[in-house]
Amino acid sequence: MTLFAHRFAAISKARSPLCLGLDPSAELLAGWGLTQDAAGLEAFCARVLEAAGDLVGVVKPQAGFFERFGAAGMVELARAIGQAQAQGALCLLDAKRGDVPGTMEGYAQALVGPGGFAAVAATLNPYLGFDSLAPAFARAQAYDAALFVVVRSSNPGGRDLQAARHTDGRAVAERLADQIAAHNAQARPVLGAVIGATLQAQETGLLERLGEALVLAPGVGAQGATMAQVGERFAAVRGRVLPSVSRDILRAGPDVASLRAAILRYRDEAWDACGA
Amino acid sequence: MTLFAHRFAAISKARSPLCLGLDPSAELLAGWGLTQDAAGLEAFCARVLEAAGDLVGVVKPQAGFFERFGAAGMVELARAIGQAQAQGALCLLDAKRGDVPGTMEGYAQALVGPGGFAAVAATLNPYLGFDSLAPAFARAQAYDAALFVVVRSSNPGGRDLQAARHTDGRAVAERLADQIAAHNAQARPVLGAVIGATLQAQETGLLERLGEALVLAPGVGAQGATMAQVGERFAAVRGRVLPSVSRDILRAGPDVASLRAAILRYRDEAWDACGA
Repeated sequence: MTLFAHRFAAISKARSPLCLGLDPSAELLAGWGLTQDAAGLEAFCARVLEAAGDLVGVVKPQAGFFERFGAAGMVELARAIGQAQAQGALCLLDAKRGDVPGTMEGYAQALVGPGGFAAVAATLNPYLGFDSLAPAFARAQAYDAALFVVVRSSNPGGRDLQAARHTDGRAVAERLADQIAAHNAQARPVLGAVIGATLQAQETGLLERLGEALVLAPGVGAQGATMAQVGERFAAVRGRVLPSVSRDILRAGPDVASLRAAILRYRDEAWDACGA
Repeated sequence: MTLFAHRFAAISKARSPLCLGLDPSAELLAGWGLTQDAAGLEAFCARVLEAAGDLVGVVKPQAGFFERFGAAGMVELARAIGQAQAQGALCLLDAKRGDVPGTMEGYAQALVGPGGFAAVAATLNPYLGFDSLAPAFARAQAYDAALFVVVRSSNPGGRDLQAARHTDGRAVAERLADQIAAHNAQARPVLGAVIGATLQAQETGLLERLGEALVLAPGVGAQGATMAQVGERFAAVRGRVLPSVSRDILRAGPDVASLRAAILRYRDEAWDACGA
């Protein structure tokens, strides 16, 4: 098998480092004239994935927007993951799951590898402790999937908690970055970090703690960071950053040609700012 | 409508404060001779809910154990929630969701109120900031659902992060407890806290910060805390604590009569230790 990091490096060159967020929010469904139900999700995803075609290397469905229609929404999530992967994209399931180790066994099976939603990468939430995520790490190693642990989120409201300090002086986010690097150094390196694209220029020391880990950087565009800013601030991890754009591309829809134009624009910007 | 807290107070008197964890883990399915698939989940839940009958006031399905079979597992989750609520139990969906505010709109719809999984209570994860959960709080207020924010988890591995300190000297868990109390004081009080039953005797100050909030205390039994210990340590919130037992009851199965005997034993213990 091939490490996700190597697959990303290859597809990033062939397509682009751009990560396209698949976010069928209530607002976007309404704006596209689609129904607020599973059929609306299906139509939305079909159109976005048609526009993405073989242009996009990484597709990131946001679980929360599928889950809101219950099990019927999760059927559409599975369908979208299958289609994105059939188009050759790497599918990163943005689910931010996190629980005690026993329950993480369940989530691990849900996210990556066969039997659940079968994505090749997913996001995890560390509030119950980095160690609590170990069952998912083990499964990712078995299937060469990648797991991106939320270290620093893109919203300003996440900052206080993530900047709280351990007794050794490290911030919560800093310690997690160290733990990711240490885990990758001692095992098959399957861990990445989620660090919001809104990271400030004076905070880029966080990136230097990550060793060779990949970095998912959500929040490009509508959340306020430009792709050029990502290029500057994430320079330390250039070639290993997945800049993620959702709303700024999706609001170009529902027309497929307009979506494709928005994708192409961001794809080029992602190459310039983040390409290896 | 009636606040979840009032519904819990009533059902706690009529049945018991016991919260029964519905955890169809791989280990339990195997132990019960069930298949590792959605059909196994269905058979497991049918048997547990038959045993629970009208004995149990609160049923807590653990989303991770359903999600591991993808959308087919989520169909069983929806079915179990519907059946538990048809039996008159309050259904608390243990999903520990947490994300930026835009995405939380989606999770809020997924968890409580109509259209998604339609539980009357759910758990949330605060790593992306207490404020990021606001869309879910608003929805809980609209439907008189309850949301239990994870403050202090039952696993030892969660402790380091949850004990990190803000610049004002408060631990992460302490500040969250204060935020829950403050939110309940200024709005319709729909917020509760998750505080592991494994809380140590010297840490019970955390409970005194919570105002009138309900407390979900997972980890009774197999995770090491006895019901009597919960009664002692959670004395400050007596009448407002939901002691949650999963494995210690479920491993009495698959026989319904044995499950029922285990439920009755814990139900009586919960009354003695936590009853109003």
